Amino acid sequence: MTAPSLASILQQRRQHLAQLVDFPVLLWSGCALSRNFPANRFPFRASSHFLYFAGLSLKNSVIRLEGGKLELFYDEAPPESALWHGEMPARSDLARTIGADAAYPLADLAFHCKDAATIPVSQVQTQQFQILQRAIALEGIDAQLAQAIATLRLRHDAGALEQLRQAAAIAVEAHKIGMGMVSHAHTEAEVRGAIEGAIFARNMSCSYNSIVTVRGEVLHNERYDNLLQPGDLLLVDAGAETQMGWASDITRTFPIAGKFSATQREIYNLVLAAHDACVDRVSPGVEYSEIHHLAALVLAQGLVDLGILRGQADDLVERDAHALFFPHGIGHLLGLDVHDMEDLGDVAGYAPGRKRRDRFGWCYLRLDRPLQPGMLVTIEPGFYQVPGILQNPHWREKYQDCINWQQLERFGDVRGIRIEDDVLVTESGREVVSADLPNNADEIEQLVSANS
Amino acid sequence: MTAPSLASILQQRRQHLAQLVDFPVLLWSGCALSRNFPANRFPFRASSHFLYFAGLSLKNSVIRLEGGKLELFYDEAPPESALWHGEMPARSDLARTIGADAAYPLADLAFHCKDAATIPVSQVQTQQFQILQRAIALEGIDAQLAQAIATLRLRHDAGALEQLRQAAAIAVEAHKIGMGMVSHAHTEAEVRGAIEGAIFARNMSCSYNSIVTVRGEVLHNERYDNLLQPGDLLLVDAGAETQMGWASDITRTFPIAGKFSATQREIYNLVLAAHDACVDRVSPGVEYSEIHHLAALVLAQGLVDLGILRGQADDLVERDAHALFFPHGIGHLLGLDVHDMEDLGDVAGYAPGRKRRDRFGWCYLRLDRPLQPGMLVTIEPGFYQVPGILQNPHWREKYQDCINWQQLERFGDVRGIRIEDDVLVTESGREVVSADLPNNADEIEQLVSANS
Repeated sequence: MTAPSLASILQQRRQHLAQLVDFPVLLWSGCALSRNFPANRFPFRASSHFLYFAGLSLKNSVIRLEGGKLELFYDEAPPESALWHGEMPARSDLARTIGADAAYPLADLAFHCKDAATIPVSQVQTQQFQILQRAIALEGIDAQLAQAIATLRLRHDAGALEQLRQAAAIAVEAHKIGMGMVSHAHTEAEVRGAIEGAIFARNMSCSYNSIVTVRGEVLHNERYDNLLQPGDLLLVDAGAETQMGWASDITRTFPIAGKFSATQREIYNLVLAAHDACVDRVSPGVEYSEIHHLAALVLAQGLVDLGILRGQADDLVERDAHALFFPHGIGHLLGLDVHDMEDLGDVAGYAPGRKRRDRFGWCYLRLDRPLQPGMLVTIEPGFYQVPGILQNPHWREKYQDCINWQQLERFGDVRGIRIEDDVLVTESGREVVSADLPNNADEIEQLVSANS
Repeated sequence: MTAPSLASILQQRRQHLAQLVDFPVLLWSGCALSRNFPANRFPFRASSHFLYFAGLSLKNSVIRLEGGKLELFYDEAPPESALWHGEMPARSDLARTIGADAAYPLADLAFHCKDAATIPVSQVQTQQFQILQRAIALEGIDAQLAQAIATLRLRHDAGALEQLRQAAAIAVEAHKIGMGMVSHAHTEAEVRGAIEGAIFARNMSCSYNSIVTVRGEVLHNERYDNLLQPGDLLLVDAGAETQMGWASDITRTFPIAGKFSATQREIYNLVLAAHDACVDRVSPGVEYSEIHHLAALVLAQGLVDLGILRGQADDLVERDAHALFFPHGIGHLLGLDVHDMEDLGDVAGYAPGRKRRDRFGWCYLRLDRPLQPGMLVTIEPGFYQVPGILQNPHWREKYQDCINWQQLERFGDVRGIRIEDDVLVTESGREVVSADLPNNADEIEQLVSANS
């Protein structure tokens, strides 16, 4: 069996869209953004909605979809640009590659905009251009379009899954390289360099700014300044992105010296127990919020068993006390975006009619839908000692009866632990697409110690 | 002698500015740009004019300079952001670090904008905010400000030079790592990964998108798709940037198999001869355009000696025939931007009253000023066989008497060679700040072969 061509994958996607909307659709790719002066730009990243239907990362391009047909609007580079950028593919070649039914210069777009729905790109530059065509708001047919695209992109097709598996495989490789060199590294930056270098070496990019930190309690730490100390845990949250834009998102936490302390191992194994319980629960029809609730329960029970929390696990979870140590959600959708379709707000993440809960911990849950086959989600429980939470007088008072502070002090060498895998919902259950990266404490120690 | 503090370096800079302008100045740092959805952003890069006077890479910040005084406008992160981003420094601490005379929340900016000059950042997002304050055009006091800042930034002070030397040193290390691993690499991407990984490992970033290509004739090639073949030359143009934003920019071209062919070596040595002649010419008072002219002459004479061009070198250069193989300029200013201050157009690059020449080759010269001590420039001659030039009927006819096509065919294994160093103009002449990276053909071969 040969793999389906890009053109046939894309054709199927737009035919599915045509079953959901009966109006024309315009999708912009966006432009490369200036870093500090016009000729020095960030690497171009096309809008994910454009990539989903156009397959190729083309700058300054627009596609028009209607009734299963695709029209490409694209300006060929002027001949003098060949000096700087080499020969660019002709419009007709690009059109053939993606199976476009027609292709025009951008100037023709003005004649093809009427009554079309669109989604704003996350770039003011291109939004302005879109606004030139007509005012945009996610209401009316634009809102219908967002719902339709979310419906399609929620469940990955074979073409998407092939890309997502590649992105996961390279991230797994990169994480292994990071674990394999950490015993010789002196700084967070060195480990980050090894991991991102490995991703670039496979001609992929990073799907988000990697987190590589001994201060795992800072959830979105994007600095790499700290020295590595023998007793530290290093939290690495890093993913790869294919050239077509599909992402992976994996986290491991490991001891720099190759050996968890007794307290680190206890908490690590608790987070892993929550992780495993949640992964096992992934199945079609299961509510993702139940999986979040399960993680909270397992963590709360474990913290009770360790003497850190006091009380009954279900009472503690009912009171949101687990969020003292696990303040974020159990995970999110993964696809072309690492938080897939988050540019649409919660349109994709939350089932129609549902809203984020206004509760400590729960407010950060990014996904609240029943799982369906073809969805790819992350499962990423964690344990953190966040000063901003644990030293906050409001929380300290509210939960004063729940926390054994003296016992917690014993676990001072655990700042933050997270274990994150990418889990595909299958017809019969689940498949962990990042499973080649060990998460068992013993195996983690072996990976770190192998080269020391 | 202890190094001067950041605060004293910055104080000196704004006192110099106060000697040049008698109006208040507002400079914006800019914001982090969304990559595909709001929470997934490109690494933040502050505007270079802001960095020059504020020293720190602060998002969404403004400084006001007047009479040698500095006021900082900066909003402290809300307490809940500590969960995601850790504790942020307080406004008062930042103000102390940079020696600000006062510090205010951003909302106070409205009361401090009157009659101030500014320079638009290269980000539409922040430009809009600037425009909210009042209309901007680089005329009147804004144009005076651009001239004044260019005057200051043209000649680097000791604080800048320390940063620039660090950026060069790390780029040198990274290039050596690239050369040392190429004999085991199979793709351009692998070499790129090794080089950029090394830059990240030292907690720097890339000052521009690296060029790592066997197709050196594509001047701004930003793809890394090609396989490495034994007879190929690899052109690597890569630089590092310090956390304060100061850049380096270095190019080497080397044989993948560790040995130049006879024809590759002949052209390599010719480009190196042009490089060395140009570096030797760098001195205070020398016109940079003369150095460009010198490169053209050396290359033209060498190509005559190799039988590729026909005629007298000075006649050929007069007719711009050298540009058939060396179409770009000999280099540019280097500082906070890799093309320093190119956001101001040619305000910094061209002396007042001068304009770009409308001639083949010369039109791409980015710098036309007499050199002054403290200027840092690149010297980067090259030889390229660009199909877009050599197969262009217009050029073929115009230069039909100058080119020996049959002889040129012998050099088919030379697609593009460039040798680029960063050269500081000193009181007595010059200093090559990237000199630790060999450029001699024999040494290059040794570096590549050492690990094979």
